[in-house]
Amino acid sequence: MLVILRSDCTAAAAAAVEDMIRSLGYRPVPVPGANRTAICVTGNKAAVDGAALRHLPGVLECIAVTRPYKLVSREVQPEDSVITVADVRLGGDAAAVLIAGPCSVETEARTLRIAEAARTAGARMFRAGAFKPRTSPYDFQGLGHEALHTLSRVREEFGLPVVSEVLDKDHVAAMAEHVDVLQVGARNMQNFALLRALAGVRKPVLLKRGASATLTEWLMAAEYLLAGGNDQVILCERGIRTFADHSRNTLDLNVVPLVRQLSHLPVVVDPSHGVGARDRVRAMARAAIACGAQGLLVEAHFDPSSSYTDADQTVDLATLQGIARDLALLGKLEPL
Amino acid sequence: MLVILRSDCTAAAAAAVEDMIRSLGYRPVPVPGANRTAICVTGNKAAVDGAALRHLPGVLECIAVTRPYKLVSREVQPEDSVITVADVRLGGDAAAVLIAGPCSVETEARTLRIAEAARTAGARMFRAGAFKPRTSPYDFQGLGHEALHTLSRVREEFGLPVVSEVLDKDHVAAMAEHVDVLQVGARNMQNFALLRALAGVRKPVLLKRGASATLTEWLMAAEYLLAGGNDQVILCERGIRTFADHSRNTLDLNVVPLVRQLSHLPVVVDPSHGVGARDRVRAMARAAIACGAQGLLVEAHFDPSSSYTDADQTVDLATLQGIARDLALLGKLEPL
Amino acid sequence: MLVILRSDCTAAAAAAVEDMIRSLGYRPVPVPGANRTAICVTGNKAAVDGAALRHLPGVLECIAVTRPYKLVSREVQPEDSVITVADVRLGGDAAAVLIAGPCSVETEARTLRIAEAARTAGARMFRAGAFKPRTSPYDFQGLGHEALHTLSRVREEFGLPVVSEVLDKDHVAAMAEHVDVLQVGARNMQNFALLRALAGVRKPVLLKRGASATLTEWLMAAEYLLAGGNDQVILCERGIRTFADHSRNTLDLNVVPLVRQLSHLPVVVDPSHGVGARDRVRAMARAAIACGAQGLLVEAHFDPSSSYTDADQTVDLATLQGIARDLALLGKLEPL
Amino acid sequence: MLVILRSDCTAAAAAAVEDMIRSLGYRPVPVPGANRTAICVTGNKAAVDGAALRHLPGVLECIAVTRPYKLVSREVQPEDSVITVADVRLGGDAAAVLIAGPCSVETEARTLRIAEAARTAGARMFRAGAFKPRTSPYDFQGLGHEALHTLSRVREEFGLPVVSEVLDKDHVAAMAEHVDVLQVGARNMQNFALLRALAGVRKPVLLKRGASATLTEWLMAAEYLLAGGNDQVILCERGIRTFADHSRNTLDLNVVPLVRQLSHLPVVVDPSHGVGARDRVRAMARAAIACGAQGLLVEAHFDPSSSYTDADQTVDLATLQGIARDLALLGKLEPL
Repeated sequence: MLVILRSDCTAAAAAAVEDMIRSLGYRPVPVPGANRTAICVTGNKAAVDGAALRHLPGVLECIAVTRPYKLVSREVQPEDSVITVADVRLGGDAAAVLIAGPCSVETEARTLRIAEAARTAGARMFRAGAFKPRTSPYDFQGLGHEALHTLSRVREEFGLPVVSEVLDKDHVAAMAEHVDVLQVGARNMQNFALLRALAGVRKPVLLKRGASATLTEWLMAAEYLLAGGNDQVILCERGIRTFADHSRNTLDLNVVPLVRQLSHLPVVVDPSHGVGARDRVRAMARAAIACGAQGLLVEAHFDPSSSYTDADQTVDLATLQGIARDLALLGKLEPL
Repeated sequence: MLVILRSDCTAAAAAAVEDMIRSLGYRPVPVPGANRTAICVTGNKAAVDGAALRHLPGVLECIAVTRPYKLVSREVQPEDSVITVADVRLGGDAAAVLIAGPCSVETEARTLRIAEAARTAGARMFRAGAFKPRTSPYDFQGLGHEALHTLSRVREEFGLPVVSEVLDKDHVAAMAEHVDVLQVGARNMQNFALLRALAGVRKPVLLKRGASATLTEWLMAAEYLLAGGNDQVILCERGIRTFADHSRNTLDLNVVPLVRQLSHLPVVVDPSHGVGARDRVRAMARAAIACGAQGLLVEAHFDPSSSYTDADQTVDLATLQGIARDLALLGKLEPL
Repeated sequence: MLVILRSDCTAAAAAAVEDMIRSLGYRPVPVPGANRTAICVTGNKAAVDGAALRHLPGVLECIAVTRPYKLVSREVQPEDSVITVADVRLGGDAAAVLIAGPCSVETEARTLRIAEAARTAGARMFRAGAFKPRTSPYDFQGLGHEALHTLSRVREEFGLPVVSEVLDKDHVAAMAEHVDVLQVGARNMQNFALLRALAGVRKPVLLKRGASATLTEWLMAAEYLLAGGNDQVILCERGIRTFADHSRNTLDLNVVPLVRQLSHLPVVVDPSHGVGARDRVRAMARAAIACGAQGLLVEAHFDPSSSYTDADQTVDLATLQGIARDLALLGKLEPL
Repeated sequence: MLVILRSDCTAAAAAAVEDMIRSLGYRPVPVPGANRTAICVTGNKAAVDGAALRHLPGVLECIAVTRPYKLVSREVQPEDSVITVADVRLGGDAAAVLIAGPCSVETEARTLRIAEAARTAGARMFRAGAFKPRTSPYDFQGLGHEALHTLSRVREEFGLPVVSEVLDKDHVAAMAEHVDVLQVGARNMQNFALLRALAGVRKPVLLKRGASATLTEWLMAAEYLLAGGNDQVILCERGIRTFADHSRNTLDLNVVPLVRQLSHLPVVVDPSHGVGARDRVRAMARAAIACGAQGLLVEAHFDPSSSYTDADQTVDLATLQGIARDLALLGKLEPL
């Protein structure tokens, strides 16, 4: 259950609500929000009876929540969340957003060249990794802090908001300075220390689904962010690990329409990691938008084969333009 | 390697080709086809050198095949196969075909009512199970032979070709009389005795991918049909088994564009089994067509909740009409 | 619910019980057994109240069954089933049974040589495939009927009961004549036409778990055999399909102690297919017995690398002897 | 390739070796070790020819490494690593080590009581979580720093070395003070920031396999620790995520004998998380040791049902004693 407090609720009244929750045998979790303050009733095994809480001073309403995730659920917020980054709106009924760029930040010259071309092709945001999570300690780990300055230049020169992955909580402050959306990679979806650090930042977080995460685990990871105070969360499906060996991952598009039913958060899809093969990215990008994704994360390059990393799944600019044209057509599909 | 024989090749010349293949240490597999006769060279671990075969009398050409599947591959047949059933063309650049109907054949009256409504909604073919594979021996197993007569009436009254699953090789002859396309279900994808029986039938076969079949295993199952003489094969993706518990199966749409690259056979998608939830079938149907599927198999009913089987994933007629409208719009996507 | 009839129950009384079940809105499924006749009450969504049935003439008792599988469950038969094949007892507290032999029946001379050596090494039963399920239509499909005569000679000369896979219901009668235990392979676990054919045979059936079968689906497949009249069923775990690429399959030993809790049927393990690598078969054989398997199916050969099929996972005779010694030591573990 | 330097190699000579590696087009990665210094040649796509390096001053030998992991492989170190913690030896031919304790540290009194009982039952090390990774932000997150003091008391009073999970790199120093083995949980296996922090600690690390990690990814995660300077690594299999829904995870015991072939690092198994059900932990513990695990991590409690967390999979003390007896018997199995 979520107890929503009135905007004029006093600290003493709020404390009284928490005491009552404890006396009923549950645990209160204050949920600070931009527009309202709420107290989540947790520790319950069955539905909570709100009768004892609804009439306390300072209480606006009590919302029953039947799922383990609360703040991310449509039960708590029925209307779509829209994330605004500079002039880009992502979520709700905004047009699907194309986010593109190289896997890794490369030299400044090459990176700026990709950014300009991506913008021309139709990208509304830029993606590139400064810090790269690599299976091998001997592989290229990204250009690091140096790359952050390159990303700042992309923002300044082309007006493209930038998405980049954060791997280490010690980098959060520096990254928040240079990029617009902080990405949590699939490997870190349940790195709760990192999620807690990001909950305290006033920047949107793009939260990739872990390769073996259930839908509930994914939404619960998002719940860490919202419960910690950051409600600007974009979910990103990027493929799960299955027995199927014909693609790098198995893009689980089934999850997209269900996420949109269960949660108010926007959901985007990364077809590049999802399929892992350059010549199938456009097909899967189409499929993602067709089933309800509100944006795409696409690895693109003016010369894909020369990419520092993930060359096999990076598309060229003609393909990126094609994806942008597909988005325009698919935008005409009836709302589901 | 595939050795293609000239149309005027004599039996003696063909036998000489087979002898030469054996003398090279391989096994010849004659491949009777409608338009040509070929001999597949099998048992090789590496590429076969065609020099000794290419110049024998009666040999038209030698085609190198680098995949374990041969007759289903684009290496052997570069152009798309198109399956024609009555007035419906499936595959190639034909418009995507909507195949719809109830999970099981119900009473004749109800079944005819569904068929008429499905045709009105835009279905071009009818699907319904006479024999049902059921996990439990105590569950409804379909109306059996009685249902076949109902299916014949659907064909006669509404001109809809009929797809229905064959579970038992003893039923093949009876089913071939009453239905237009014989379906092999996911559980029987590697029931080789059944595949051999169907290889001898002059009816198209719709071959569902097994729930844990790799792409290669699926194409090899199709190869059993083609190698046995039946080249009218439609592939059908219907979801694989993974850890994901939010949908009945995990629809593996990644496989669709790859199948279209590797094989000339048409591929359709069954979003109903793929997602297993009525309110997400339309979204996944869109995604399937968007990424290249050439048809859809959709469970539909005038009153889904009263379906004899699979009620949870059966859509109503308004949804079916919506899917038909989606197909029209998606037909405008550029070819990939 | 299972309604057990008295041994002197008349046909009329049995019919009256069935009528009563129907009048309660359920479906009666007669379950002919060697020692008793029972009527399974099916079609119920919740627990059935036995009051109306318990006191009918001819009724011995009513057993509540909370699982979808009934006859295979310990609720219906609490004591272990023991399958007796010639002088070999498998199940219950019998010593773990080592079943060994080549993947395929080879020439008669080679096959007899393996059988003799396997018996010397400690095998109590012989396994070898006459008909082989092969992913490719071009691969060796087994020696077929000719191999059955070889298997008969193994029985006669060495007194070893023989296990062999049946792929086609048309082969059931011929195989029942030559072999002692009919194996259903993983690919056919839900080939219900084959299961029905085997339910009518008076021979034990070894039922392999499908590569993506849940525990419930596996037990339900066994239920088809028992419900059809054959209660001599041995379950066999042989590995499931997962993302793990370091072994041919992922041997799911977790299932073994659970099967033994839920079902009275004996369970054996096939470590050869489970791991797919010769040098790890003995380790997994040990693990299987340690967690409760009542037998092992091991591919063994006097010269493994020359095996017609599955050479990579076939062990030599020294390894087979080692496995037999392991069984003796592991037999000293306390009962769980 | 690994270039091993002589113990008397000068800094200048080492620099010359690195220069030569660069001039060959590769990247040198210095590998500081307790007993020797080595330089790993990385960035190669094919085998490196050691001729140009082998004869440089200061070079002891050049070791070819064919796997992506180098320092963890038997190619680099053929003999088993043995980790010594206080008086406990883990790995090599040491007797299998039983590590037991509650899922979470509970009150000091309860925790000490469990520790004493576990020692009596046969445990050689103690395990308990101070910081708990929880899917939900609202669930009990462990007693944190307060719990570390309780763990110190366990060490002091009962002489049991302590294993506990580290979730946050900021906790590494504090935990290293209070516990003997730092555990990396499955969710953090590829939290490379955490791995780098642990590479700098002089304490053994127990590295759990991620729920969807391939064998190579797991060994590469260990490689991060060794490449960073910490060669005291214990691998721990705890179950993978598959479609199988009858157990919490699917314990992948197949991996155990293969890890022992490929790596010199010791491997232990956690049957509690692997199966997730109290009444099957002992069976799986047996299986783990039978196939080659060198230790067990078992959740145990004097009153399992009152456990703060993971009550379903926590065994009682009688079961723990039984596991200890099993270890004694299984120690008599022949070496593989």
